[in-house]
Amino acid sequence: MNDPFEKAISILTRSGDFRVWSVIVTIFGDLAQDQGDRISGAQLSRLTELMAIKPEAMRVALHRLRKDGWIVSKKSGRSSNYRLTDTAFGEGLAARNRFYTRQVQMPSDYHVLVMEPMSQADRAVAENGLAKDGYIDIAPGVYLGWGAKNPAQTGFFTLQGDVIEIPQWLKQSNAPENLASGYQTLTEMLTDLKALFAETPDLTPLQIATLRVLVIHHWRRLLLRHADLPAEFYPDDWQGQTCRILVADILDTLPRPALSSFEETVG
Amino acid sequence: MNDPFEKAISILTRSGDFRVWSVIVTIFGDLAQDQGDRISGAQLSRLTELMAIKPEAMRVALHRLRKDGWIVSKKSGRSSNYRLTDTAFGEGLAARNRFYTRQVQMPSDYHVLVMEPMSQADRAVAENGLAKDGYIDIAPGVYLGWGAKNPAQTGFFTLQGDVIEIPQWLKQSNAPENLASGYQTLTEMLTDLKALFAETPDLTPLQIATLRVLVIHHWRRLLLRHADLPAEFYPDDWQGQTCRILVADILDTLPRPALSSFEETVG
Repeated sequence: MNDPFEKAISILTRSGDFRVWSVIVTIFGDLAQDQGDRISGAQLSRLTELMAIKPEAMRVALHRLRKDGWIVSKKSGRSSNYRLTDTAFGEGLAARNRFYTRQVQMPSDYHVLVMEPMSQADRAVAENGLAKDGYIDIAPGVYLGWGAKNPAQTGFFTLQGDVIEIPQWLKQSNAPENLASGYQTLTEMLTDLKALFAETPDLTPLQIATLRVLVIHHWRRLLLRHADLPAEFYPDDWQGQTCRILVADILDTLPRPALSSFEETVG
Repeated sequence: MNDPFEKAISILTRSGDFRVWSVIVTIFGDLAQDQGDRISGAQLSRLTELMAIKPEAMRVALHRLRKDGWIVSKKSGRSSNYRLTDTAFGEGLAARNRFYTRQVQMPSDYHVLVMEPMSQADRAVAENGLAKDGYIDIAPGVYLGWGAKNPAQTGFFTLQGDVIEIPQWLKQSNAPENLASGYQTLTEMLTDLKALFAETPDLTPLQIATLRVLVIHHWRRLLLRHADLPAEFYPDDWQGQTCRILVADILDTLPRPALSSFEETVG
């Protein structure tokens, strides 16, 4: 355990469980940056092996991802190559900015949509399109959006302008207990990891790729469970922004290796 | 019935019932424009007599108004003089602009307060102060205000800016059936009255005062049942603004007489 890579892996896997399919999605999201970039089965095996993921678990995950339309595979001799489907690549592209940016900007302009009063059940149906368009529900029937109103959203009382007060109850509702404690745990994990890399670590491209994927995996898992809101919308003790900066710092220390740097020659 | 005054009274009393105490408040509101202006019992009798209000009904109403702190009376020989209490005068002053203005201005700036989600019962309590500060509830827990936020109102998510869309459901909810039909009836009444006064009518100051009071009484009765909103907040067939203009036109034809112009010498 004197090896910095082993120490890092031990820190990044101490929370125990992670979903293998989600790790694989993260591998593609971070390492296959260009549309159509392929990752070979051998590369996937070497990466997941370093994370102590069993080959069988990886095969099950790849099967599920193919079935659900996330990846496509292509046989090439004895080996298979995988790439994201165009849909999956597009979704990843949209989310990428969330993972890698150091600071969520406070928009200069907001708007609020107020829905016609209706039953909770009817509202749940009417709300569907709003979340997809990036609206945040701040109270039953009240939705917050950025910049100008999406023209597709009509039939709401709509006011556009400046946020004057963000009350404590809203900050608290943006920081549910499980999410807040998730960020607390991640802050500790990433702080330990960052301390380990005070000096530039001597790691192989494959090791760097593995660590990047695990960092982003943990970060993404929390980030995708809530909307991106500027720091002003969270309680003072919210660790989301702390994690964001730690992630950015660590990824700077571990620059993304080219896929070719840990490619095996097909035997 | 060839006398224009009798025709006017017949038009203005055709809807039947009116509350005598409310008519008396209107008398003070329109005719006693300066704080401390007194109206004698004899003047009140002559005005209400022309409206076919029975003396006994007037006495009951005066008693009630004294008891409720709206008016104070002072004996002066065989007669009594009445004036509004300072509180009542102040409230009337605040409402006066609503009765006499020709056009409700569209404010350049609005703000919306979003209340913490809570039960309907708790919300009813929390709402009390908002209505008093002139806030309009546009949906459960959502309140619309004019200009800058009232600093006393804190703990709300607050957005200040421009109204972008006023949906049909909100316009309809601002125009409940009983109010909309009340304005429809009043429009018809005032249209008939205005037609009667196409030529400047030959009326005594007492008759003019009586007609003014009845016009304002009908208008006030509807106006005080809802918040003042610009025309954009109502359905296209809303008659509130039509009534407002008719009232202003008719009052221009019947300029307010001085109280002294129909004062009896105390006998």
